[in-house]
Amino acid sequence: MKYILYALLLLFSAPVFAQNADSLFIRQIYDETLARGKAYEWLRHLTQQIGPRLSGSAGAQKAVDWTKQLMEKEGFDRVFLQEVMVPHWVRGAKEESYIKSGKQKTNVPIAALGGSVATPTKGVEAGVVEVKTFKELEELGAAKVKGKIVFFNRPMDPTKINTFEAYAGAVEQRANGATFAAKFGAVGAIVRSMAVGLDDIPHTGSMRYASGVPLIPTAAISTKGAEKLSQLLKENPALTFFFKQSCETLPDAKSYNVVGEIRGSEKPDEIIVVGGHLDSWDLGQGAHDDGSGCMQSVEVLRVLKALGYKPKRTIRAVMFMNEENGLKGGIGYADYAKKGGEKHIAAIESDNGGFTPRGFGIVGTASEKAKAMSWKSLLAPYGLHEIGPGSGGADIGPLAQSGTALFGFKPDSQRYFDFHHTDADRFEAINKRELELGAASMTALLYLIDQHGLN
Amino acid sequence: MKYILYALLLLFSAPVFAQNADSLFIRQIYDETLARGKAYEWLRHLTQQIGPRLSGSAGAQKAVDWTKQLMEKEGFDRVFLQEVMVPHWVRGAKEESYIKSGKQKTNVPIAALGGSVATPTKGVEAGVVEVKTFKELEELGAAKVKGKIVFFNRPMDPTKINTFEAYAGAVEQRANGATFAAKFGAVGAIVRSMAVGLDDIPHTGSMRYASGVPLIPTAAISTKGAEKLSQLLKENPALTFFFKQSCETLPDAKSYNVVGEIRGSEKPDEIIVVGGHLDSWDLGQGAHDDGSGCMQSVEVLRVLKALGYKPKRTIRAVMFMNEENGLKGGIGYADYAKKGGEKHIAAIESDNGGFTPRGFGIVGTASEKAKAMSWKSLLAPYGLHEIGPGSGGADIGPLAQSGTALFGFKPDSQRYFDFHHTDADRFEAINKRELELGAASMTALLYLIDQHGLN
Repeated sequence: MKYILYALLLLFSAPVFAQNADSLFIRQIYDETLARGKAYEWLRHLTQQIGPRLSGSAGAQKAVDWTKQLMEKEGFDRVFLQEVMVPHWVRGAKEESYIKSGKQKTNVPIAALGGSVATPTKGVEAGVVEVKTFKELEELGAAKVKGKIVFFNRPMDPTKINTFEAYAGAVEQRANGATFAAKFGAVGAIVRSMAVGLDDIPHTGSMRYASGVPLIPTAAISTKGAEKLSQLLKENPALTFFFKQSCETLPDAKSYNVVGEIRGSEKPDEIIVVGGHLDSWDLGQGAHDDGSGCMQSVEVLRVLKALGYKPKRTIRAVMFMNEENGLKGGIGYADYAKKGGEKHIAAIESDNGGFTPRGFGIVGTASEKAKAMSWKSLLAPYGLHEIGPGSGGADIGPLAQSGTALFGFKPDSQRYFDFHHTDADRFEAINKRELELGAASMTALLYLIDQHGLN
Repeated sequence: MKYILYALLLLFSAPVFAQNADSLFIRQIYDETLARGKAYEWLRHLTQQIGPRLSGSAGAQKAVDWTKQLMEKEGFDRVFLQEVMVPHWVRGAKEESYIKSGKQKTNVPIAALGGSVATPTKGVEAGVVEVKTFKELEELGAAKVKGKIVFFNRPMDPTKINTFEAYAGAVEQRANGATFAAKFGAVGAIVRSMAVGLDDIPHTGSMRYASGVPLIPTAAISTKGAEKLSQLLKENPALTFFFKQSCETLPDAKSYNVVGEIRGSEKPDEIIVVGGHLDSWDLGQGAHDDGSGCMQSVEVLRVLKALGYKPKRTIRAVMFMNEENGLKGGIGYADYAKKGGEKHIAAIESDNGGFTPRGFGIVGTASEKAKAMSWKSLLAPYGLHEIGPGSGGADIGPLAQSGTALFGFKPDSQRYFDFHHTDADRFEAINKRELELGAASMTALLYLIDQHGLN
């Protein structure tokens, strides 16, 4: 009996000891982050001192310079830039827009969609056709659409528990609405803002034109504005909509990913990335999208360094450029990695807001997923219950081709679309503890991958 | 072989069918609540039209009248009041306070603690003794404390993941600080606000005097004020603190619990309660604490009614009075239940804010806990992962004596102490979806208890 006990002890003591050591170190990670965290004050600087950071803008360049300095000051082993060419779209003067029904003019808030062309200098005014789907538009056909402004008014579905699912179900209107409308001869496309609730702020975002279709101007209207327009259309189908915007696409600009690195002590050639994207839309301050993810990523390396942790693998914080309207940073990073023969075993991205942590979505092999899911009990005490197959992140996506396992940090999604791509995405929208818990969660996951690998 | 299959089918089909029916109905609960929820607009009225509702105040009475009407309008089977006598404390004029160091006066924001006596009409000014624990105070003893103001400055521990744990570790300063200080001859007690972060708003809350000790005035100072006072004390230990407050305790007042009921169709004598407390502190509007819980509870009954659900058991929404400074409503409700020979099988309380749902804490027998935990897979798709032993709720607490199983709704705790007992606890601090998800979670749990019981 004794021998069996000894045998059992030998069998189980090693992993139990490791599990316990992991548990203790993860507790230290949270303690350091919650008691002496720096992400919140860094984010204050990035959002309030630097502000919006659309690719190609002066703000984006300032953010590149400042985050490079920040990581240098934190004493990471190596900090470097990766040059990428990025689209350079500018909004121009503030948009104007109103609904004209009989003698009544009703102003409604709009924001040009990123990538859209301008209206004629004097604006465009036309009758309005409201649709909820592309199929409806097709059924109306050119006869009823030609010369009109198409109003895409399908709301995000409020019954989806995860708001990103609701976003996925509506965002084609923003991305492709103008192209579909132009096919049938429309002169403009107005898209209901991607928001679950009703508010007065327009939500911008990227759109693209398919080739061979006329480029017509397109803008997002606030959800309350959309409700108003829809209601007035019912009362007077002959009303007109006016809008004026002067946005334009300038020549591509030179920009950079910013990379900070702590070199691995045992397997320096295996790299683990943690990142977010440094660019933001030009409205607001890009606080949740995605200043949070960037500052959390720098915090991951700072915390490990502060705890005296020597990573086995090389760990990198990457501030990707141009997620919003081109993904040139993410594509460029994967290219550099491939050309440099670098082996990235895992990449973690935070680009769903600085909210309270829920878990991680995983893109990888079955055994990588199983390995990560075996850590559930270590992470559950910190509210990380949703660890399983999911999505990684736009910027780290291109690394998947080379077999990198992707981990998308999954904060609570309920408030994200209150701020997303709007003037409301400001520092004040960030809760310090929520931001810090996200950073600590990313640190804990990175630590486990570094310690145990994914195979 | 066939026979075995049939036998297996017979064995398993009933529970599988039930599980599936539950899953479908719970989905309907969330759909109804998220697409046509009313709790948010009701809460707007309760907070913005009625406002603060401290026990004994005109606001509390208005809230009683309005919630009674609301439940009558919703057509519940029976709506009634339960009379209770409640403490009636009033704040009086706005408090004044400053730190005086040499010739320099620094104003700092304070709020009298609920139950405190007033200062002398001209205020009180005295030297300050700062402590972090009662033990420190004891060690100083009367020699160093007599004639002074004791400043209790132990912060909530930011490294606790659940902020309620941090609250539990600090709140004795607020509850009993004045009593401890008075024992050693202090003339006042100033307590660091119960907040994890640093801000400029004082957090009020209840305190009590032990018998046989002089009643000295006590107030909460904002966390930034506390940091300032601590810093200035280091520079000048001889500084003085001045404060003036005119609060008083009036004779007990008559008030009410408000109860709405849908009668059970199969076991009407078994009652399931869902509730929150209708009273609030006099600062702010009592939005998270606890207008949310009240409006969510009414929504639970509305949603089940809207879905045409006929409960087996009798279900009640209870708006408890006087949770904040006496618990007379909770005690009274349990008394009425006992005297009426009512059998309460379960009670659910929402009094931790209208934030995104995490789970339920359970107080009950092992088998009741096991039964509730067997529903985990039905609730996990809605973010409810934390279902297990925990705390129920102050108002439903007294029901435990009669064997009622208690369920404390557990929303995410990160932001709660940004608002708790302050002027910032206003309607604007509520996110519609988070509030609704909470209501739907409570409805789903109540539905499962009603369908399957707890044994």
